[in-house]
Amino acid sequence: MNQNITIIENPSINEVKGFYSNACCCEIKKKDKLDLGIVYSEKLSSVFAVYTTNKYQAAPILVCKKHLTNNKAQALIVNSGNANACTGNEGIQNAEIMCEETAKILGIKKEDVVVSSTGVIGQNLPMEKIKKGILELKDKIKAENKDNFSLAIMTTDTKMKVAGVKVKIDGVEYKIVGTTKGSGMIHPNMATMLGYIFTDANIEDSLLEKVFKNSIQKSFNSVTVDGDTSTNDTGMIFKNGMANNKIIDDKSSAEYAVFCEALEYVATSLAKQIVLDGEGATKLIELNVVNADTEKQAKNIGVTVAKSSLVKTAFFGEDANWGRIICAVGYSGEEFDINKVKLSFGNLMVFENGRNLNFSEEDAKKILSQREIKVTIDMGCGNKNWTYWTCDLSYDYVKINGSYRS
Amino acid sequence: MNQNITIIENPSINEVKGFYSNACCCEIKKKDKLDLGIVYSEKLSSVFAVYTTNKYQAAPILVCKKHLTNNKAQALIVNSGNANACTGNEGIQNAEIMCEETAKILGIKKEDVVVSSTGVIGQNLPMEKIKKGILELKDKIKAENKDNFSLAIMTTDTKMKVAGVKVKIDGVEYKIVGTTKGSGMIHPNMATMLGYIFTDANIEDSLLEKVFKNSIQKSFNSVTVDGDTSTNDTGMIFKNGMANNKIIDDKSSAEYAVFCEALEYVATSLAKQIVLDGEGATKLIELNVVNADTEKQAKNIGVTVAKSSLVKTAFFGEDANWGRIICAVGYSGEEFDINKVKLSFGNLMVFENGRNLNFSEEDAKKILSQREIKVTIDMGCGNKNWTYWTCDLSYDYVKINGSYRS
Repeated sequence: MNQNITIIENPSINEVKGFYSNACCCEIKKKDKLDLGIVYSEKLSSVFAVYTTNKYQAAPILVCKKHLTNNKAQALIVNSGNANACTGNEGIQNAEIMCEETAKILGIKKEDVVVSSTGVIGQNLPMEKIKKGILELKDKIKAENKDNFSLAIMTTDTKMKVAGVKVKIDGVEYKIVGTTKGSGMIHPNMATMLGYIFTDANIEDSLLEKVFKNSIQKSFNSVTVDGDTSTNDTGMIFKNGMANNKIIDDKSSAEYAVFCEALEYVATSLAKQIVLDGEGATKLIELNVVNADTEKQAKNIGVTVAKSSLVKTAFFGEDANWGRIICAVGYSGEEFDINKVKLSFGNLMVFENGRNLNFSEEDAKKILSQREIKVTIDMGCGNKNWTYWTCDLSYDYVKINGSYRS
Repeated sequence: MNQNITIIENPSINEVKGFYSNACCCEIKKKDKLDLGIVYSEKLSSVFAVYTTNKYQAAPILVCKKHLTNNKAQALIVNSGNANACTGNEGIQNAEIMCEETAKILGIKKEDVVVSSTGVIGQNLPMEKIKKGILELKDKIKAENKDNFSLAIMTTDTKMKVAGVKVKIDGVEYKIVGTTKGSGMIHPNMATMLGYIFTDANIEDSLLEKVFKNSIQKSFNSVTVDGDTSTNDTGMIFKNGMANNKIIDDKSSAEYAVFCEALEYVATSLAKQIVLDGEGATKLIELNVVNADTEKQAKNIGVTVAKSSLVKTAFFGEDANWGRIICAVGYSGEEFDINKVKLSFGNLMVFENGRNLNFSEEDAKKILSQREIKVTIDMGCGNKNWTYWTCDLSYDYVKINGSYRS
């Protein structure tokens, strides 16, 4: 990592200059669980967002798109426990009301508020509870707390997920802190990947947008727990520029390169936390597809292997099951020379020249019994690489997703 | 079903005129398990085949392609317990030797023998055992038996899979009997879907090829257990014409229509048997995508829903989890009007106009607790339909595929 970047241990959104966050319990989830979170920036922020490609986009996404036509916002309100998805016009009105009520307590315009929801699909939001919750947040927004927002957006996540760095250049420091919730699936329907990154760095908008979208590709869009894409998935970056560093406005500058590296670290760390907290996951698998013809080929092979239930159960079983990986490479739909592909677990090569190698099962077992496993698929036909993260498929995945009503 | 078609209870390949089949144990699998099967036709047959689209096609597929350039064969030899896949040139030579040895005992040309293997990937075939087995089959080929071939091709299948019909037209009867093995995955790698159909009907080759490929699309290519496509998947039809019915050579004739219906019944029955015997499966889900814009759209939506681990675990849990199905429809990549889609479990409509309906959870539970469940996704935008079959995802799937080495 660049020497100007320092990883923050146990970071909080609230340590990024000008950002305040908190949360309350308004009983959408079980009693005493935080389920309504707010983030407020002292200054109007530049905001860039990416959303699920699912045709059924939830109501809050439709409202965010409308409010972010100018790419500006000053506050974010998020509820968990109910996704406000497949809820028709009533759902859109409810998402608008959430923005309005939030704007009121902060004294800002409703168009400067963005909104997310995560939880049950197809049920109307309990608006009285939410309105009461927003009023409660009015006095709490600047109250001391570290993790309340990150806790409030959780659904079946077993751990809060936060990552942050500080960057010092020419004696001036800026921070990037992000938080996310997992792609775990919740009662009684599927949930969502939400990710928010906050920075006080002073960086030109078009550069911020570019590096943000690029980072999302390499992080949130390069992980899979079960291959399903939710109705509510949302990623956002907020920038208020309050660190007052010299503006980063030259894409060939060292300062921009450092910002890119710092942001990618935060986004990738969050994405890996999601996978490792995937439902029932016991292992984090890093799939490196290297020496591919094109980036598209590397990505497609990565995602095909990452989504294979057979590959994922084999990792759960700690089995050197190279045939399942090679087979998934084979049905990826990509064109390549089957005799040039090499496959390794860690540093142990298990497949080459289109056929089996005599490798030590004992060495393989050592590698596969670890909690984090590196797999390299060398396509041997070009110089494009892509890394994809996935988890294993365990009994607990089936338990969590099959039997939550019994 | 057309009145000329009669379903045969417990059919056998051996009741199709001119076809003989048997099997022996040559200890590729555990002792005393049938693992080498043979089928022989008195007359040279027309044979059409379809193979896996996986880039890593196993050695026997490469040999079949060579031997079927003239679409003629007289015998089939199949071993289970070893897939002869990812085995390089040695694997191709071994598949050729299997054909040669079979040709010798039958006194036919080796080019008139086709071969399949199913089982472990990446291990060389135990050729001495196989050669001994083929010799043993010489005296057995016409010996009385009913199911030996169907038993010999099984791997993790828990049941033998056979289906057959007889068709009587103008006092002349012909038969179509098929057998298959499941897409279950076996120690230590993935296995294969093998399907063979035998008919003594007299039908013109080009019509046979057309209806066979069409039937495969609607049957074997419309089922999924876990979405993985193996290195060895093979479907074949053998026709020796020995029933001596008046030749079916007019694609607009009633006789051709009856043959099509009969063959589709056999192929679909086999495909459904595979799904219901899928690893750990407890339910057969019939997904009817109706009123789609194009057949491609209907198929793609069907396969996306059928492959979703979230949908499959929900069926295991007997949960009216319509949100997961709608969500999978949404990420299928197809274009459609989200407000026109309707979703039903059995006759119970659960989703319409882009949002939740108030349905009876009790009624839903009644439908979902059955062993066979019909789901209808009405796209409301055209008149194209496609049916896809899938199974639920249970604890046992993970057990079978994760822990077979422990």
